Formats: sequence, structure tokens, C-alpha cells
Amino acid sequence: MKLLRYGPAGGEKPGLLDDNGMIRDLSGHVNDINGETLSPESLKQLQAIDPATLPEVAGEPRLGPCVGNVSKMLCVGLNYIDHAHETGAKPPSEPILFMKATTAIVGPDDTVIIPRNSVKTDWEVELGIVIGTEASYVDEADAMDHVAGYCIVNDVSEREFQIERKGQWVKGKGCNTFGPTGPWMVTKDEIDDVQTLDMFLDVSGERRQTGNTRTMIFGVAHLVHYISQFMTLLPGDIIPTGTPPGVGMGMNPQTFLKPGDEMHVGIQGLGEQRQKVVAWPG
Amino acid sequence: MKLLRYGPAGGEKPGLLDDNGMIRDLSGHVNDINGETLSPESLKQLQAIDPATLPEVAGEPRLGPCVGNVSKMLCVGLNYIDHAHETGAKPPSEPILFMKATTAIVGPDDTVIIPRNSVKTDWEVELGIVIGTEASYVDEADAMDHVAGYCIVNDVSEREFQIERKGQWVKGKGCNTFGPTGPWMVTKDEIDDVQTLDMFLDVSGERRQTGNTRTMIFGVAHLVHYISQFMTLLPGDIIPTGTPPGVGMGMNPQTFLKPGDEMHVGIQGLGEQRQKVVAWPG
Repeated sequence: MKLLRYGPAGGEKPGLLDDNGMIRDLSGHVNDINGETLSPESLKQLQAIDPATLPEVAGEPRLGPCVGNVSKMLCVGLNYIDHAHETGAKPPSEPILFMKATTAIVGPDDTVIIPRNSVKTDWEVELGIVIGTEASYVDEADAMDHVAGYCIVNDVSEREFQIERKGQWVKGKGCNTFGPTGPWMVTKDEIDDVQTLDMFLDVSGERRQTGNTRTMIFGVAHLVHYISQFMTLLPGDIIPTGTPPGVGMGMNPQTFLKPGDEMHVGIQGLGEQRQKVVAWPG
Repeated sequence: MKLLRYGPAGGEKPGLLDDNGMIRDLSGHVNDINGETLSPESLKQLQAIDPATLPEVAGEPRLGPCVGNVSKMLCVGLNYIDHAHETGAKPPSEPILFMKATTAIVGPDDTVIIPRNSVKTDWEVELGIVIGTEASYVDEADAMDHVAGYCIVNDVSEREFQIERKGQWVKGKGCNTFGPTGPWMVTKDEIDDVQTLDMFLDVSGERRQTGNTRTMIFGVAHLVHYISQFMTLLPGDIIPTGTPPGVGMGMNPQTFLKPGDEMHVGIQGLGEQRQKVVAWPG
């Protein structure tokens, strides 16, 4: 099942994508796609609905972030072995975690805004894990029971803010529009093996990132287990799991986003995103 | 005006503390104390109410975090000059920012739970800024217009998780119960000068931290301005502004919390907190 949210920012309605690629309105059944409606019980109820009985949504509405009301976006850094090699960094012995402000979360095709005074805005295609049930001190063997599904996250990052502006990464990771999320959340039953998904990111027609989730250092089940040792994950929380090689910071010469660029982002089975890049107005 | 939330966790009602120290029920006027009800217009309406006309709340109910539905807790590190000197660290040239998971936020007198495998759980009394109106690219001269008021935050921190477990501080800052917040939010009109407030923290009857907000390196107005250059602050967001000298990590020998300890935390004009410390069960 592919769950999504459509309509104007802040006023999104819940929907699903049917097998013909048509959006169907779910608002007769749930108020939103969020932590409350991602529980196993709720997903089971939604799965029992024949999509053909749902109202068709006409036209091509804007898509919002595929999960609403996210309480945390807890991200994993340096989690692809080929990306670690590329940057010359030693692969971490345990997951590196950081947070992205939830104010960064936008729809999959929303505009990405380069912040004022930014000179190093960069891209990162990532597999996002969407939590379905509360997870605290979860064993790795049980971790997948807490996963509702997956979505694409573009973990847009300002490298100067992140690395050169003192202290923690939060300054360069949490800027407004730095978290395009979607187009839809695909329930885990639709993904045969989450650790063999191809992924890519293009900037203005040039392929920049090519990867596959099989080169993740710490896989999905381990990450959910690991993070749950430090804090409770709530339904609707999203875990972007790190990026494969090909970020702008790693290019020679380093290359960053500029107004007018367009990003095209995809992960096998999870759909695609397209973001125009603009400068912050004024 | 001292705004608070009382009742069982997850089912708190809005209230205010009157001049006699009595809790009065505000639920006839607002649904909660949160981003929606902290706007200048809403505060003005609440201020127009004669507390004597509000129902008295009998007994001594549990207090919840004084702000509900917080979207982010954006914290400032190493922001007291005497604390920087104490640790031997060079004072930062610009604010150090990090995030605390909102799942860490609890009531002012709730139990603080030492996480499993923790050996270095530490304390940090902090002045918390509560945002009242959305703040993005705000000039320092206008920053105070975006502040609704202040509260105490105990920025409980696991130093091994924070510093020795790879990467970012989030692992040691965001653990469940690591953010006692309250007892109440004091509206800014009640605080003559937020940069001259005495503060203290005792552990099991021993004074550990003594400070005053006048030794903050970056003051309240600058912090709101500064953070708003990186991301939008939303109404109800809380900014703990760093801690004065006396944390356990800085003691010789280093001293950390153990089950059975009790913390007593206070800031002039903002009330006091008391937390019992227990081990994570099981």
C-alpha cells in the first residue's frame, strides 16, 4: 500500500496511490496519515479497503510530506561503506545519529530554498524508515515489528553551517525545506528486501548519486534496535538512514546547489521526487 | 502570569498560578498551554481574566511540562563564561546548538530515569526561552517580540552517550525523562531583566550548581536572532540556553546521578523543580 498526503501545505488530506497510479481519497476513513494511523491495526483496516471504492482525486495535486505531525526525524550519518571510503572516513563502529528539525520537512516535490548566506547546500538521497509502533529497548530480532514502511528523504545539508559553524550538525541539517519526504510511504509488506534497493539522485540532469541499500553499514533492523536504546521512537517518527556516494562535498572540485538547479531523486519501489532549487527571497 | 499544565501525563489541563500560589483551571478559556495559546493576542486575552473568577484546583496535582506539543527543543551548549572556564574550554565564538528529542520532555517534578547501561547521567539547570510567535531571520532588536516567556529546563545529559559513543550529542541528550520542564512558564512581562537571574541545582541536599544568567556568553535576544538564521522557530518551541558551573562531569572526581538521588532545581522568579532519580526498570 502506498500512503500519501495531498493538497496545500498545512491542509493535506490522506490518500493512497492505487495500482493504476491514481490518487484515491482516504479522508472518509482516516483524518491524516500520521502516527495514529500507521499502527498495524490501522494499516490492516486500510488494507482491507478496495481502492476502487475510494473517490478518485482529479488532476495532479501537490503532494505533502507522506507522514504528518512527525515528532522526530532522527538521522543516521556515514552509513554507507562506499560513501565512507569515498570521503576517506573510517567506517563508524556504531551508528552516528543526529536530528533534523521537523520544520525542515516538506513535500517530495516542494521547492528547496537555499538559506541566506549559504554557499554549500548539498544533496543526500536516503531511505527513510517510518515507525509504526512505539519502540523502546527493542531487540534487533523484534525491530521490524515496529516499522510501518519506508519513504524517500532528501537529507539536504548546508556543509558550512553543518561543519564549520561550531559544534553540532543541527545548523546545517535543519534549515527550512531541507527534508523533502515522500512521495508516499510504502508499507513494508510491499518491499521484498529493504537491503537491496537501488537509489539515485540527479542534479539538473547529471547523475550525482548511485547506490544500493545493500552497502549500508548498519541495516534497518539494527538501526531501529540501536536508536531505541537511547530514546523512545514514536509512531510516525522517521529515520533517514544515511546516503550513498556522490554528494557535492565529495566531488572534485566540490559542487553545491545553485538557484535554478533541479534535483531528481529515486529509490526502487518508493517512487521519485523532483525539487526546484531557489534562493531565499530578499 | 504563570501558566502551567496539571494532571496525569498525556491528559494535562491548562492552568495558571495565582498570586496566592493556588492553581486555577484555565480549561474554560483555552484547551492547552501550547504554541497556539502562547501568541501575544492569546496571552493578552488570558491576562484580562481575573484569576479569582477561575475555578480553584484542589489538592496538589502532578504538574506536566509547562508547554504542550513542543515541536522542537533547540539547546545551546557551553554558554556560560564561568562554566567554559571551569571545563577549560575556549568560549565559543558563536552559539553551539544541539537538539533534544521532544520525547525527553517531562513534568518539572517527574521522576528522572537513568537509562540502561548508563554510568554518567549528569544534571544541568538551564533558563528555557519559550517562543510565542514564529521567528525566521529575525533581527536581534526585534527578537524579544517573539518570546512568550521563560521556564526552567533541567538538561539532563548522559556524558558517555553524549561524548564517547560516536558523533553527535543527541544520544546523550534525548533520553526519555531527560528534559524536566516547568513548573510554569512565566510571561516575559513578569521578569524585569532576564539576564540577572540567580539559579541553582542541588543533588540530594548538596549544592552543585550556582549561577546567574548575567554570565551567559550569548544572551536571550541574540540566541533567538541567531537560531532564526538557520531555521524557523515555531510558537511553543523551547530554547534551553546553557548551564552555569557545577555539573558532575566537571567535579573532581567526576560525580554522576545514582538511583535514590533527588535533584532540586531553581531559577529566580521561575519557581523550582524536584526530581527523584531511579534506574530504568528491568
